[in-house]
Amino acid sequence: MSDESQELGITETKSHKPGEWYAEVVQKADLADYAPMGGFIVTKPRGYAIWEGIQDALDTRFKATGVDNVYFPMFIPESFLEREKDVVEGFDPEVAWVTQGGHEELEERLAVRPTSESIIAPFMADWTRSHRDLPLRINQWCSVVRWEATETKPFFRTKEFMWQEGHTAHTDDEGAWEEVWTRLDQYEEVYEDVLAIPVLRGKKPEHDKFPGADTTTTVEALMPDGKSVQGATSHNLGQSFAEAFDITFADEDEDEQTAYTTSWGLSWRAIGALIMTHSDDQGLVLPPTIAPTQVAIVPIWQADTKEDVLEYSQEIADELEEAGIRVELDDRDERNPGFKFNEHELNGVPLRLEIGPNEADDGEVTLVHRPDSEKAVADREGIVDTVEDHLDTVFDKLYEAAEENLAENVREAHSPEDILGTIGKHGGYVKTPWCGDQACEEAIKEKIAAEIVMQPLEDEGGQSAGEVVEPDDDECGVCGESADEVAYFAKSY
Amino acid sequence: MSDESQELGITETKSHKPGEWYAEVVQKADLADYAPMGGFIVTKPRGYAIWEGIQDALDTRFKATGVDNVYFPMFIPESFLEREKDVVEGFDPEVAWVTQGGHEELEERLAVRPTSESIIAPFMADWTRSHRDLPLRINQWCSVVRWEATETKPFFRTKEFMWQEGHTAHTDDEGAWEEVWTRLDQYEEVYEDVLAIPVLRGKKPEHDKFPGADTTTTVEALMPDGKSVQGATSHNLGQSFAEAFDITFADEDEDEQTAYTTSWGLSWRAIGALIMTHSDDQGLVLPPTIAPTQVAIVPIWQADTKEDVLEYSQEIADELEEAGIRVELDDRDERNPGFKFNEHELNGVPLRLEIGPNEADDGEVTLVHRPDSEKAVADREGIVDTVEDHLDTVFDKLYEAAEENLAENVREAHSPEDILGTIGKHGGYVKTPWCGDQACEEAIKEKIAAEIVMQPLEDEGGQSAGEVVEPDDDECGVCGESADEVAYFAKSY
Repeated sequence: MSDESQELGITETKSHKPGEWYAEVVQKADLADYAPMGGFIVTKPRGYAIWEGIQDALDTRFKATGVDNVYFPMFIPESFLEREKDVVEGFDPEVAWVTQGGHEELEERLAVRPTSESIIAPFMADWTRSHRDLPLRINQWCSVVRWEATETKPFFRTKEFMWQEGHTAHTDDEGAWEEVWTRLDQYEEVYEDVLAIPVLRGKKPEHDKFPGADTTTTVEALMPDGKSVQGATSHNLGQSFAEAFDITFADEDEDEQTAYTTSWGLSWRAIGALIMTHSDDQGLVLPPTIAPTQVAIVPIWQADTKEDVLEYSQEIADELEEAGIRVELDDRDERNPGFKFNEHELNGVPLRLEIGPNEADDGEVTLVHRPDSEKAVADREGIVDTVEDHLDTVFDKLYEAAEENLAENVREAHSPEDILGTIGKHGGYVKTPWCGDQACEEAIKEKIAAEIVMQPLEDEGGQSAGEVVEPDDDECGVCGESADEVAYFAKSY
Repeated sequence: MSDESQELGITETKSHKPGEWYAEVVQKADLADYAPMGGFIVTKPRGYAIWEGIQDALDTRFKATGVDNVYFPMFIPESFLEREKDVVEGFDPEVAWVTQGGHEELEERLAVRPTSESIIAPFMADWTRSHRDLPLRINQWCSVVRWEATETKPFFRTKEFMWQEGHTAHTDDEGAWEEVWTRLDQYEEVYEDVLAIPVLRGKKPEHDKFPGADTTTTVEALMPDGKSVQGATSHNLGQSFAEAFDITFADEDEDEQTAYTTSWGLSWRAIGALIMTHSDDQGLVLPPTIAPTQVAIVPIWQADTKEDVLEYSQEIADELEEAGIRVELDDRDERNPGFKFNEHELNGVPLRLEIGPNEADDGEVTLVHRPDSEKAVADREGIVDTVEDHLDTVFDKLYEAAEENLAENVREAHSPEDILGTIGKHGGYVKTPWCGDQACEEAIKEKIAAEIVMQPLEDEGGQSAGEVVEPDDDECGVCGESADEVAYFAKSY
């Protein structure tokens, strides 16, 4: 497989045809394949290893903050979906239905879960008797299905996708808000510290909330092609699910109260954002924090130097592995060094060590960064520290490039022409005062397929909802009416 | 929740009503709940933590032996299932079918995967071009659905269950056998070293193989009620899937050859076997290797000693946690020590430390084993080593009891009356010479619902299939005809 993909290489460029380029990187770096049914993909070892890295980073954070993992059935009876009216309206058009079991027609259709609030909430009701049972925090790692008729884009748009969904119940609204922000903080941390992707945080406009939610908060990441990716969402569900499913508890005075719930999720779309943010025309680029292989050692030998070079390379590989660095010694006979360089570049290995007879004789190594091919020569001694420093540098380069892209691409606009022109010309985010009327968003959306992806908040965090940031100028950027909220328009994935 | 279950306690006994007792332990130790749809369960935090422990133990072993994790779609088009005739015959009666997506009828029904050979094999065909691409080893952790109309028994019989399924392709039959035994060895290791359950290994009779397999190998565990549990299976699929799905490769001479494939799986039935093997009339019993909480510290105080006792207990908890022991300091005010003792017993915590003012003054701790309540007093100094020793002892006690049960319950029989009488009286395994005719198994099965669960092999392992052990006596224990194989009859889960 790698042979062929290698011979082909990436043929499209990121700047000219980002869609085709993305599809090529996914396939040629062996991350995923298209399944025979439209809308489904097969996640290959290299792609799944990235997902395992994300799972590990999040799961550790969840467990350290009071969340337990659980598993609920993948099917939800239709009557359960119908108990929360916004949920049924929101998801019914895109549910896959199981109607037959074995050779029998089922009496009630079963939805393949599009999200699990409707099957989890009744159990929360059952498990929550006293205020001492709260907060209740559970999470599951699973896949969900949403039958959307769109073109397949691996990790971004698929009918089945992998995610985690957290569900919590609290005695009061303050507790629910604290939960919402804790999870949004953790998503931000994983995007920034693990995936090297800076994000903006805020709330979705009212008309774009999760079905049944009081407030949907989001982290948004800006892709190099100027589109925003909704990176993860954290919902304050208020009391709507608790009321629909009778999640009540006895308070300290033994009075019955209705609970407050939240839910929050991050999907494998994070892998899509990761690929799109850092990769280039040579293929995949991964920050060392998430790369399944952090260091590839490529020995360069002639017949008479092979033994020495390999022995020296092996010692270095062992020392790095011992120190917990994910290293691969590429000692394949049938491939030449140039081929190996290209292959490790295509596969997104952050750091390459080139070791020839000179390096072996002089007690040195040559280090090459991905993606900018910056080279350095360093002493064999202290190799672990040296490699760790270089991995940090590679991470910083990637983060800084993404940060610069974000900083350069938040622009203000104060008229519909200005909003349309700015997004049309530059992409990115356009920050504008907004009156709060959905019609103003529609007016933009109809012309340029950009929408309000986020509204920044101030005084958020802790136990409060925060307030949407007020604009300097109080005229809506679309209709010119009085505006007291800031909104960010962008095209989005 | 715990309050109520605690007040109720386990009311049935393991010896009198094992089925009801099992259901009570599962619910009252908070492992799982019944879902609203028959045949489905909700896995609660304590149950899921056990599954995570099993996953971790197996996944580490798989990765250390060349297996990569992947994820394939949960749906399989009907036409794919039909490509391997044994698969469609074997699974068709128990497939859940998705027939509608959103508001549309699908053109082709999609099976919710009962197992994934039929969707994985075509990709293996695609990924396997040259002998250099082999062996190919992939695994996925997921749930599968088999629509069987049976009473729900959590972890043992559910329509949806969690498992891992490994799938590999090899250049020759020897490679496939080596794979089959590697995985069976790993299953045996996890049962014995992690779950403290000794197993017997062997092959399933021809008529009871996995659909499409050449040979199905199994590890079988004997439950205290005398029934056998099929603990995990490892299948040599020969060339049947490779032929049905064109998994071919160019050998060293560039000639096209057909590959050999295997598949192997372990499900959450392992949790069922774990509960059934060790637990007792006080509730759950878990070996320390898998227990989410290994040590519960219960401080015992009066008003005037509370501060000292708690401080002393906290120091010990910190020291144990620091050493990587999973410890919980139960400092709840609203519960008395007796209540806590019962609760930790119900929940299967292997070791309890009781710490009162005497222990705090004398620099000692009292240790109590689960399940036999053996008590010991030890010095505070060296507490980490002491606790580790006691945890090992608890593990050994559990393993030895299970081993003794197994050793005592393999009996020989040489006539149908003898087979029926022995199983009827004692349960367990009955070892008998067998002619190989399925009719002989049927004759027993009709009368007592026992079947041939396993045939032991000799010279298995390495790259060979091994041979079924020959009996000392060459007359079939059922029909009296010539017999050259040993078979183990048992009732089974």
